[in-house]
Amino acid sequence: MIGLQEVLDGRWAAVRRAAREQLGGTHFVAVPGETMAQARERVSRLLRELPTDPGIASGFPSRYGGRSDPGASVVAAEMLAHLDLSLMVKAGVQWGLFGGAVVALGTERHHDAYLRDIISAELMGCFAMTETGHGSDVQQLRTTCTYDPETQTFDLHTPHEAARKDYIGNAARDGRMAVVFAQLVTGGRRYGVHAWLVPIRDERGRPLPGVTIGDDGPKAGLLGVDNGRLSFDHVRVPRDMLLDRYGQVAPDGTYSSPIENDVRRFFTMLGTLVRGRVVVGGSASAATKSALTIAIRYGEVRRQFAAPGEPREIALNDYLAHQRILGTALATTYALHFAQEELVSALHDIQTSTGPADEHRQRELESRAAGLKAAQTWHATRTIQACREALGGAGYLAENRLPGLKADTDVFTTFEGDNTVLLQLVAKGLLTGYRDAFGSLDGWGRATFVAEQVREMVLERTAARGLIQRLVDAVPGRDEEVALTDRGWHLALFEDRERHLLDGAIRRLRNGAARQKDRPFDIFNDVQDHVLATASAHVDRVVLEAFVAGVDRAGDPEVKALLSKVCDLYALSTIEAHRGWFLEHQRLTPARSKAVTGMVNELLRQLRPQLPTLVDAFGISDEWLNCAALREEPGRQEAMAAHDDELRRPAARVG
Amino acid sequence: MIGLQEVLDGRWAAVRRAAREQLGGTHFVAVPGETMAQARERVSRLLRELPTDPGIASGFPSRYGGRSDPGASVVAAEMLAHLDLSLMVKAGVQWGLFGGAVVALGTERHHDAYLRDIISAELMGCFAMTETGHGSDVQQLRTTCTYDPETQTFDLHTPHEAARKDYIGNAARDGRMAVVFAQLVTGGRRYGVHAWLVPIRDERGRPLPGVTIGDDGPKAGLLGVDNGRLSFDHVRVPRDMLLDRYGQVAPDGTYSSPIENDVRRFFTMLGTLVRGRVVVGGSASAATKSALTIAIRYGEVRRQFAAPGEPREIALNDYLAHQRILGTALATTYALHFAQEELVSALHDIQTSTGPADEHRQRELESRAAGLKAAQTWHATRTIQACREALGGAGYLAENRLPGLKADTDVFTTFEGDNTVLLQLVAKGLLTGYRDAFGSLDGWGRATFVAEQVREMVLERTAARGLIQRLVDAVPGRDEEVALTDRGWHLALFEDRERHLLDGAIRRLRNGAARQKDRPFDIFNDVQDHVLATASAHVDRVVLEAFVAGVDRAGDPEVKALLSKVCDLYALSTIEAHRGWFLEHQRLTPARSKAVTGMVNELLRQLRPQLPTLVDAFGISDEWLNCAALREEPGRQEAMAAHDDELRRPAARVG
Repeated sequence: MIGLQEVLDGRWAAVRRAAREQLGGTHFVAVPGETMAQARERVSRLLRELPTDPGIASGFPSRYGGRSDPGASVVAAEMLAHLDLSLMVKAGVQWGLFGGAVVALGTERHHDAYLRDIISAELMGCFAMTETGHGSDVQQLRTTCTYDPETQTFDLHTPHEAARKDYIGNAARDGRMAVVFAQLVTGGRRYGVHAWLVPIRDERGRPLPGVTIGDDGPKAGLLGVDNGRLSFDHVRVPRDMLLDRYGQVAPDGTYSSPIENDVRRFFTMLGTLVRGRVVVGGSASAATKSALTIAIRYGEVRRQFAAPGEPREIALNDYLAHQRILGTALATTYALHFAQEELVSALHDIQTSTGPADEHRQRELESRAAGLKAAQTWHATRTIQACREALGGAGYLAENRLPGLKADTDVFTTFEGDNTVLLQLVAKGLLTGYRDAFGSLDGWGRATFVAEQVREMVLERTAARGLIQRLVDAVPGRDEEVALTDRGWHLALFEDRERHLLDGAIRRLRNGAARQKDRPFDIFNDVQDHVLATASAHVDRVVLEAFVAGVDRAGDPEVKALLSKVCDLYALSTIEAHRGWFLEHQRLTPARSKAVTGMVNELLRQLRPQLPTLVDAFGISDEWLNCAALREEPGRQEAMAAHDDELRRPAARVG
Repeated sequence: MIGLQEVLDGRWAAVRRAAREQLGGTHFVAVPGETMAQARERVSRLLRELPTDPGIASGFPSRYGGRSDPGASVVAAEMLAHLDLSLMVKAGVQWGLFGGAVVALGTERHHDAYLRDIISAELMGCFAMTETGHGSDVQQLRTTCTYDPETQTFDLHTPHEAARKDYIGNAARDGRMAVVFAQLVTGGRRYGVHAWLVPIRDERGRPLPGVTIGDDGPKAGLLGVDNGRLSFDHVRVPRDMLLDRYGQVAPDGTYSSPIENDVRRFFTMLGTLVRGRVVVGGSASAATKSALTIAIRYGEVRRQFAAPGEPREIALNDYLAHQRILGTALATTYALHFAQEELVSALHDIQTSTGPADEHRQRELESRAAGLKAAQTWHATRTIQACREALGGAGYLAENRLPGLKADTDVFTTFEGDNTVLLQLVAKGLLTGYRDAFGSLDGWGRATFVAEQVREMVLERTAARGLIQRLVDAVPGRDEEVALTDRGWHLALFEDRERHLLDGAIRRLRNGAARQKDRPFDIFNDVQDHVLATASAHVDRVVLEAFVAGVDRAGDPEVKALLSKVCDLYALSTIEAHRGWFLEHQRLTPARSKAVTGMVNELLRQLRPQLPTLVDAFGISDEWLNCAALREEPGRQEAMAAHDDELRRPAARVG
């Protein structure tokens, strides 16, 4: 169904098509069973061979050789994620994190000096933010960078092992420079976290004086990415290596910044780096699509147990239990696809807008990126596991690709922000209407946020506001009488759940604050599960609205009908998963709740013949999937069937 | 709390103590980051160094050097699983699967000839059942072994690639013989699957003529286990190499067996091999305990975000969201521990009983082993993933052990029986009262099983029948008025759920059969989700009853009180997880359901200080855990705190 792939390819269809051509064949595809050294060598080499137009580097400004197209760079990363997640992450570190930080936090002199070499991968670099001692609490980094007016240099220093930079991609092997985040100190005062461009290796790859480089060694996955550790022993950094778009230090040590408040400044800096999270979420979804394509194609050819007394054989995909797992996961993958597409569009439009910065819109984007990153990466972890189990023993062999997909994506749940912390950020945005929410990862901490700040509750619609409102308004009559597949009813239920949870969270936080004002941690901790559920419900609603808008965009009626059925499955299986809540809050009667389960099964039955079509539309080639069992299984099944037939013939030679 | 460990150590405490002594230190502990070749070499070498008394080989008959103690062999495997899952699986293949099959399916001449060399690992062997083309459907293996009276040999043959033996441990590198399962043919008739002892390599390790040996290559985990593929091209096998306890072939080719029916005979043979499943479930739980010990100890020292306006720092374990994940997983791990202990006891008592075989008890054992294997391995996969996420980036590094635990246990969900297929087996036993259920993995297939066979519904109590009944009978008054921690109420709810689900499954199957008699596959497939839920509910009930009986056995009142609280948490978090069902069936009111969630949170709060005690009681040494972050993190946190204090002093030198 050509039209289906077109709808999925979406706004950056040209980038997807280019990737299918330029990266065709197996040249860039992950190699199972490599040693760490082999993987690092291959990935490092291939990075330099990657096409850049379009490509992940498309986000760089045109005048340095990019396309000024942030959306294209995200979509190019998603495509590369089908081939090799190590290569995608390595490229993401080089062009997204390292290069992206130079663009966003540096000024023209940095751009002129380095961007061309960064784009060509002549200059390989690191993004050195995370420290061993604290991960999520980046505002409290312990590395210091202290200005000395005498020498007009900064003194970059790691005070103890807990402050060393850790898990830093490109550090263990290839990086020659690093964007290092540290506390800026000048004139005896701290101004919060800033970033410097710091050389770490000489031309021959040896660590520079004062720089200690360690290796994080073997990891669960992503063997091709050379993660390492960086420590600095009073390293002198020239004054002009401060990436000074948001904070400048004059030769005499005077500090100045367009943003007065240290916290706000830091989170504004972080906010410019939102693309990393969008890429991680999108890549997790790409890996999920690869895994589902493998599992569903395998389930189509693999037969298990003959049907008793019937001439047909039972394919794995015929089993309801199989459909329950893979079919619903596929529907969620579709839903997340449309949500990601919408997020990338929002990111692109904000980052290419020439008007004045819209802080509310920026906060909303950061919140959306955080929530979808959490949803997509957890969905990937669960779904790839299910796909690996769906292949039985074959799913455990490296030659069948799933072990690599699983191991490589695992870290996505905690890097670029731990998922639980990210959902808290989403909740914070909802509770405050994005006022002072920043791109902050500071949990509930730091006293800047108190329960009284929570806003009056207002839900903001996302995509296609008009369409969604029309559908909700059109729901006829009482709930019990509405068709189970009524789209407005789905939307109203999702919205109702979010609204009620948010309302309850606000009430509980206020009550808690009144009761135990002096223990702000407990106020939040007592309702942490409720607050996280609120954030999840919000993400669910955003995802459904994006899916509904995506269905609406489909032109071909056949495509639209199929997508609409998949959307029903997503909506109803999500309602089913949360039926405990809906029943507790009397949004579903027991009878209606059981009917939802019945309808999920019915939709799975109806969609059964379309499962292959639905994964074909992801447009992932056999070479990219690189799964031995898909190449060999059809032949095996034929051989078995022929042999069994022979045995069944009356004059069978059984010996 | 010494008494707590004593309760957990249970009936085979001596075996656990011996393992802690004999396997102490790091000698037998998994080495992170090895290549496949290194891991295979090390594991193969260490296998021969493993203590055998007590040990996995304790299950062999005393007169060949074992202890005739099947329970000890399972517990020894569980202990070894703390150290290195590759080594455990390799040992399990050698002594459990290969040696176990020779014991159970062979007769005295096989025992006399081979058991001593098998126990000493002088003779390494394989268990060659699974074929590439079909995994779960072992009754339909395609390999044939045809008797020829002229030469008095069998002709063992792999008719096509789909029939090759696959995923066979010990095959790729070390195995010199294999127990090969194939269709026995003699006098032109098939008699179903039997097993032969077949040499596959010569003394110098070269494949014997007609035997083709392949390598399954890199896997997601278990790198130290040399899984491979075996094909046979008309290999001659002497007549006396048939493992002929359940089926004999006379020199003239006449077949005889104590069990007339081919299907029943095959499943009786399979039933003797039940120990493998018990070992896999127990080992999965052992790995879960290791992972939880790491995550909870780490969560105790690792601090994240300062508490706003308070002098204390917040440990990860203080967060409700963290407790929600790790605390409830810990309670389930305790519950499964007691269920496993009870299962091992039942296995031991049946396999050491000298009375006549009790087929009902044997079927029940097989069903219990299947259900608990599924529950324990899925719980392991979920929990180890959660533990890995709980360590953030550190959880992704091989040096912190969790990647190994995760990758190695992954395959447990599908080997020794795919979990979904195993739950179906459980359901089948429940539906038929174990009549004709066999240890069968044949899905719903093969027409031998029709819906009319389902029995009248009778629930059978498991452990401590008297105790359970007294508790259920003592539930006072109406549900709403009963305390949320009333044990009898928990038991009654679990039992009610199982009973109602089973009742409904029977009704739906009968109605389906009446409606579409000619499509038996559809009859079952339409209710497959319902049937699987029934099996799950049964396993939940069995697990709770075992936990209740375990709490009752604790002598020390402090230990008993703590265990009782953990049991409350298991019961209520399980009820909470299924509250959708309880609400749909009006077993919980909405208010009561919300109260259950509140009580789960309250129990987590109460148990928070005891989390370290609860993992300490697993008795896993630091050397066995082998986690770098646990060794280093306390020092890091101290260094950070000292440094931060210095910065906070009024006269701070910030530079």
